[in-house]
Amino acid sequence: MNVPDLIRKKRDGEPHSRAELEALILGYTRGDVPDYQISAWLMAVYLKGMTPQETADLTMVMAESGDLMDLGDLPRTVDKHSTGGVGDKTSLILTPMLAALGLTVAKMSGRGLAHTGGTIDKLESIPGWTSELEEAQFIAQARDIGLSLVGQSKDLAPADGKLYALRDVTATVDCLPLIASSIMSKKLASGAHTVVLDVKVGAGAFMRTLDDGRGLARAMVDIGTRAGRQVRAVLTDMDTPLGHMAGNSLEVLEALATLRGHGPHDLTELCVALAVEALAAQGEDAAQAEARARTTLHDGSALAKFRAFVDAQGGDATYVDDVSKFDVAPGRADVTAPTSGFVDRIDALSVGRAVLALGGGRERKGEAIDHGVGVELVKKPGEAVQAGEVVMRVYHRDERGLHTATALLADGLSIRAQAPTPDPLILDHVN
Amino acid sequence: MNVPDLIRKKRDGEPHSRAELEALILGYTRGDVPDYQISAWLMAVYLKGMTPQETADLTMVMAESGDLMDLGDLPRTVDKHSTGGVGDKTSLILTPMLAALGLTVAKMSGRGLAHTGGTIDKLESIPGWTSELEEAQFIAQARDIGLSLVGQSKDLAPADGKLYALRDVTATVDCLPLIASSIMSKKLASGAHTVVLDVKVGAGAFMRTLDDGRGLARAMVDIGTRAGRQVRAVLTDMDTPLGHMAGNSLEVLEALATLRGHGPHDLTELCVALAVEALAAQGEDAAQAEARARTTLHDGSALAKFRAFVDAQGGDATYVDDVSKFDVAPGRADVTAPTSGFVDRIDALSVGRAVLALGGGRERKGEAIDHGVGVELVKKPGEAVQAGEVVMRVYHRDERGLHTATALLADGLSIRAQAPTPDPLILDHVN
Repeated sequence: MNVPDLIRKKRDGEPHSRAELEALILGYTRGDVPDYQISAWLMAVYLKGMTPQETADLTMVMAESGDLMDLGDLPRTVDKHSTGGVGDKTSLILTPMLAALGLTVAKMSGRGLAHTGGTIDKLESIPGWTSELEEAQFIAQARDIGLSLVGQSKDLAPADGKLYALRDVTATVDCLPLIASSIMSKKLASGAHTVVLDVKVGAGAFMRTLDDGRGLARAMVDIGTRAGRQVRAVLTDMDTPLGHMAGNSLEVLEALATLRGHGPHDLTELCVALAVEALAAQGEDAAQAEARARTTLHDGSALAKFRAFVDAQGGDATYVDDVSKFDVAPGRADVTAPTSGFVDRIDALSVGRAVLALGGGRERKGEAIDHGVGVELVKKPGEAVQAGEVVMRVYHRDERGLHTATALLADGLSIRAQAPTPDPLILDHVN
Repeated sequence: MNVPDLIRKKRDGEPHSRAELEALILGYTRGDVPDYQISAWLMAVYLKGMTPQETADLTMVMAESGDLMDLGDLPRTVDKHSTGGVGDKTSLILTPMLAALGLTVAKMSGRGLAHTGGTIDKLESIPGWTSELEEAQFIAQARDIGLSLVGQSKDLAPADGKLYALRDVTATVDCLPLIASSIMSKKLASGAHTVVLDVKVGAGAFMRTLDDGRGLARAMVDIGTRAGRQVRAVLTDMDTPLGHMAGNSLEVLEALATLRGHGPHDLTELCVALAVEALAAQGEDAAQAEARARTTLHDGSALAKFRAFVDAQGGDATYVDDVSKFDVAPGRADVTAPTSGFVDRIDALSVGRAVLALGGGRERKGEAIDHGVGVELVKKPGEAVQAGEVVMRVYHRDERGLHTATALLADGLSIRAQAPTPDPLILDHVN
């Protein structure tokens, strides 16, 4: 197929066939189609859009650009994806809950970049824990304890990595079919039959408005359905970080508290809601599913799965029971309320950037990070504060990045005179 | 300036400042901005357009991407451009006419590629003639005899060459501001104060409809005006090749006949019309200008300028007076009318491709060509023919490409029962 003819077709607003998308995307992945042709095509996609069928075809082609994980005969496989948030330790809690509920989580996960954290970085706060598993162990462990987690293979949807890098430098990132296909190509290639999606909406998220978030959720559910998977999405508010903690060790500590039934309300409710979606996708009654999901946080069953999972992947399981062992940076600094009133907003992006400044994240792939630093939200939006009262606490090491971090946090904090109307955490469901 | 931000601006339909266009275009020309960013930007320009001011700014930036020809104090400098046609030998006739009329033509010209011929290839039918002039000779000759012609320098608007090559492989060629800026950047860099444009319209031309042609002509006139030049355009029909001859030597022979006042009607009238535009741009009265222009074809003054020009650039000027010296390929083959009626259409593109098949053009830059081969239109559209009567004659050498050429010509010929209404050659004027 002639590439300029394919670019022309999209330029003129015509839909591509699956074979045409294969010619473009697999050709690009192999290096046969040059980046300058794909970037022109991406801009045409950005400005002319894609039909749902085209988006699903594109996603399948991207998934098939590399290895497809074969989860074989593992029962009731579930994967989870979040569109990214600051202080989002949901996976640490949800995945052992799902295992305790009798589902199987054999999941690939990533590392953090810039202001967003990554599940693997968080888990590496536990000495010895590794994401480097052979495929046989990955599958066997998922069968044995219902939960295994491995680093994302370079051969998982390699088209996505190449396309994303090109979109990043050609102003074609924020385009719904391209976002949806990017996320879902990796989920389809990862092999789970059920996928639950947490689509974040708000100032700190990729999707700024609820309508945008709904559009993305619908597009991803549609892709999954066309590919024969069960996909359900929850739309959640992301104006403020989830829970109280941001930073690797701090988030694991908060996750462990939640697995003991003592987690913050918002975090606990989101984990329950996502577990309910996973069970509902298996045909379970919603009310019954909710009761079962909450029980795993109170009867120790989710915590037991987490302990077994840490142990199976080489981690020191004593950390799970003696949380004083975690390395938490010793330095403390407070961000206080400039006036009395109610906390109006704690900007999630500012918190993410503060953790990055403290050394808890990386600017570039491969950089080492400090697991012990972070930010604690002592107060959350809606709470009353007096002038001078502590709103956020910084955990730093040797003052590294401290001034930047506190300045970012102070700028991201707003106080108002009247009590704000609380936004619900869960804004909508799409399935 | 951040390139993705500039791409985003055009993607969102906002106009660029001149400084932004400099960052993109000069950065690309230097190799600092990669092709994959420019191709995304080109697609955004294709789909979102450019304002007249942006188009003029883009053109000036492209012109200034390389050397600007300094025509210094040469009097009344005129350049001419045609958007490309088969059998278009207009420059060979018009430029000595303009010199005979007291204007100065110090012109850069190109070689042919694919089915279109180039003025330099045609002139090289005269042994010894060269387009390789030092700049000092180029200027001195223009001052002495009013006409000099040089090959297009690689440093003339280099941004245009790079952009065109990229547009060609990214489906962004047929975009009005990009076409207009491409043509005009070279004209502005070439330095002439007055530019006359021959915008071809029709099945064989870049611009398929009169409206499209008018749009391009207006855009180019507007660019020239904003750059302080005098630009006037003539829109001409290009469904059929101009005159009777296509092929290098054959076209020079036809040009010489025209310079002696014995040219085909369409070719003569177009040359007169373009000369009138050039004189009108200098403020001359149109009726008087037309009379003066016609006179140069009858009093030998244009022919004398042509002879002096050939001689000054190393050509054997005896060819001008003894046209039997030209190397015309000896082989002859005829394309005849399949039925009786009137010639309806002789497709210009088919004729161009036939010449190419015969060896009279090149597929790739740098290939040698056979100056002696070509096609003669014995009949022109509108003329009555009997079944079996010769409509076109092929001049071939050793049957090279003969079968392809005659098949192309037969396919491009249509005969109809009723006499067609003749289309006027000159469709409109824009200035």
